[in-house]
Amino acid sequence: MTDFGLEDGFVAACHGVSSQIVPYARIIDITHLVPPGDIRRGAAVLAQTVPYLPAAVHVAVVDPGVGTARRAVAVAAGGSIFVGPDNGLLSWAVEGCGGAAAAVSLTNTALWRDAVSATFHGRDIFMPVAAHLAAGVALAEAGGELDPASLVALPRPASRVRDGLAEGEVVTVDRFGNVQLSVTGADAARAGMAPGTAITLRWRAGELTVPVRTTFGEVAPGEVVACTDSAGLVSIAVNGGDAARRLALGPGTRVTLSATELSLRTAFRFRRAHDTMVD
Amino acid sequence: MTDFGLEDGFVAACHGVSSQIVPYARIIDITHLVPPGDIRRGAAVLAQTVPYLPAAVHVAVVDPGVGTARRAVAVAAGGSIFVGPDNGLLSWAVEGCGGAAAAVSLTNTALWRDAVSATFHGRDIFMPVAAHLAAGVALAEAGGELDPASLVALPRPASRVRDGLAEGEVVTVDRFGNVQLSVTGADAARAGMAPGTAITLRWRAGELTVPVRTTFGEVAPGEVVACTDSAGLVSIAVNGGDAARRLALGPGTRVTLSATELSLRTAFRFRRAHDTMVD
Amino acid sequence: MTDFGLEDGFVAACHGVSSQIVPYARIIDITHLVPPGDIRRGAAVLAQTVPYLPAAVHVAVVDPGVGTARRAVAVAAGGSIFVGPDNGLLSWAVEGCGGAAAAVSLTNTALWRDAVSATFHGRDIFMPVAAHLAAGVALAEAGGELDPASLVALPRPASRVRDGLAEGEVVTVDRFGNVQLSVTGADAARAGMAPGTAITLRWRAGELTVPVRTTFGEVAPGEVVACTDSAGLVSIAVNGGDAARRLALGPGTRVTLSATELSLRTAFRFRRAHDTMVD
Repeated sequence: MTDFGLEDGFVAACHGVSSQIVPYARIIDITHLVPPGDIRRGAAVLAQTVPYLPAAVHVAVVDPGVGTARRAVAVAAGGSIFVGPDNGLLSWAVEGCGGAAAAVSLTNTALWRDAVSATFHGRDIFMPVAAHLAAGVALAEAGGELDPASLVALPRPASRVRDGLAEGEVVTVDRFGNVQLSVTGADAARAGMAPGTAITLRWRAGELTVPVRTTFGEVAPGEVVACTDSAGLVSIAVNGGDAARRLALGPGTRVTLSATELSLRTAFRFRRAHDTMVD
Repeated sequence: MTDFGLEDGFVAACHGVSSQIVPYARIIDITHLVPPGDIRRGAAVLAQTVPYLPAAVHVAVVDPGVGTARRAVAVAAGGSIFVGPDNGLLSWAVEGCGGAAAAVSLTNTALWRDAVSATFHGRDIFMPVAAHLAAGVALAEAGGELDPASLVALPRPASRVRDGLAEGEVVTVDRFGNVQLSVTGADAARAGMAPGTAITLRWRAGELTVPVRTTFGEVAPGEVVACTDSAGLVSIAVNGGDAARRLALGPGTRVTLSATELSLRTAFRFRRAHDTMVD
Repeated sequence: MTDFGLEDGFVAACHGVSSQIVPYARIIDITHLVPPGDIRRGAAVLAQTVPYLPAAVHVAVVDPGVGTARRAVAVAAGGSIFVGPDNGLLSWAVEGCGGAAAAVSLTNTALWRDAVSATFHGRDIFMPVAAHLAAGVALAEAGGELDPASLVALPRPASRVRDGLAEGEVVTVDRFGNVQLSVTGADAARAGMAPGTAITLRWRAGELTVPVRTTFGEVAPGEVVACTDSAGLVSIAVNGGDAARRLALGPGTRVTLSATELSLRTAFRFRRAHDTMVD
């Protein structure tokens, strides 16, 4: 996963370097369209994708500080190894794998490309080291041991529940314009949200009562809906439309969710009806 | 083929789920940039690409009705198996492979991921089922048999020839702005169109006499030209330019083609000249 | 590498055609987002990426003259074979591999697809021929021998140093907005540019004194900086920003670089300080 984009040959150079070290390794590209330098977005995509990948060497490069003092690291967690800059990019994925079991600073230059540029460590350090690790080189060979507690960790997106109110923020917006919140489906349930109910969504720019459903297609085309998404987080969507654009919600926007009075009654009816959908 | 886009980790999650079931299967990505929810566009790309792919399990997900009552299906046709939602997306490709030989509804949950989200059946149902089929599981194991006649079929784009007039519509516009019509090269020939002639193109917004050539590069840069494209359909292009933008032609626009008087004479001269190009 | 884009099935068709000839060949996609018909951009990306790829059959298709008289060729250079249109696209990469050792015109139709369209030689000629070559078919089998000197060569981007002035042009702009010049780091050094100094950049639209550093991150966010990039060329960047947009620099823009008076003194101090960065 990188922010290298797809219009240059940068990603191919990384694949090429790897294939000369470990020709038969299978590579799955997570995405190379992380917005340039957006570490938080990269961290979110990585953490939400890794659970569906096999145990592997995961290379992630969103590295606005390339060539400066930031460390280059490899971190063992949950049977995988994460390779990248020590700027927080790896932290949520590592945490999702149960935390770092071990970590090293990539100081063994024997595993780097012979010539290392100052600006393209993805090609010259991260990818060749990852390829060697994939080929069976031991983690400890990649460099000096680090205290995992010293790794840079991004703060988690804000999220809490109190007094029937779930507070959080927008984590990401996907291609469809679906707005993923930092509020888990479980926390939202504690705030009274359940399929068949409605919630009141409040943010800087507005307030809206939104039906809660199991999937987007359960409301009419063009209607706003709240679901628990495929990552287990509350997502605000428009059936067949773009919720982020419609509601002017973007990464970092603070939101609150609360059960609406009406929806509490609806929820009651909903549960009585044994999973029959009602409005 | 999906409409998942490339900026999220959705496609990688599908690859990852597959690689844990059938690690050595080769995956060819057709495209993940079908416009969100555009089933017709997806159906056209799939049908035009499959003829060049090996016999395979083809997974296609453009699924605005995910999680609702639409069926999930696997369809055997022409030595391949197509897996996706039963919303018409697969229908043109299946027809191009000689029609459905057999079909099942994906009801065998043993082939799904353990936890199935309501909104991401690509990852949780279609891809794991496809991976099992690629690994050799029999189609009948994937679920209950369906009457192929019950599968949802998209209407074919309108196209007919009568009285020397070919009527059709724009099927797709590609990256270059080339406008692909529903009129086959063979039908256009019946309407008098041949390399070296000219045709009159009429649509809501205008009328234009267009030279017919074998390839785009046979007209001067910036000139409009009609060719039979690599899918066997009439395509309107601008050499080095974007015909769709220039002529305001988009998917669904109705058009007619007819031989122009001048071009009939030109065609005569053309044939006399033994393949020497004349204007 | 092509200009086919990613929203159609064109690239997949090429992969599919290849996989039926040589199923287990590994394919690395360099990029398919070369701007349509932009041969110079394609040539630059190819030449800058190939050094990091294994010896291979490299297929490149940016082919605005498809179907016209331009030749289709395969060129052996530096242990690799380059396959594509003879329009200059391959020339810089071939030169970077030490020049053409041998070349053929792709005239052996037995290696083509059975049906060849007039407009899609990537799928019907270049890719199947490349697949046969990757499978071990001899270069001479692909067609008639050509004099390598007859291959179309793109002129190199202008670049020269005289009287302490480096003259060049913008070669490419990457995803980050970094502006790559035709001036090598070595030539710039001859003009007095070194990390720790500053240069004066002049172009049609302006003049700017720019600090020279080893990497982008050594200046404050939002500041312009000059580095030697990962291809060994001088690159003008903005730390965390888009230099091309900020300075209105695009491919082909002519520029000059010269050491600034101040920077010569700074450079002196810099060298005295034994690699301690100073402003």
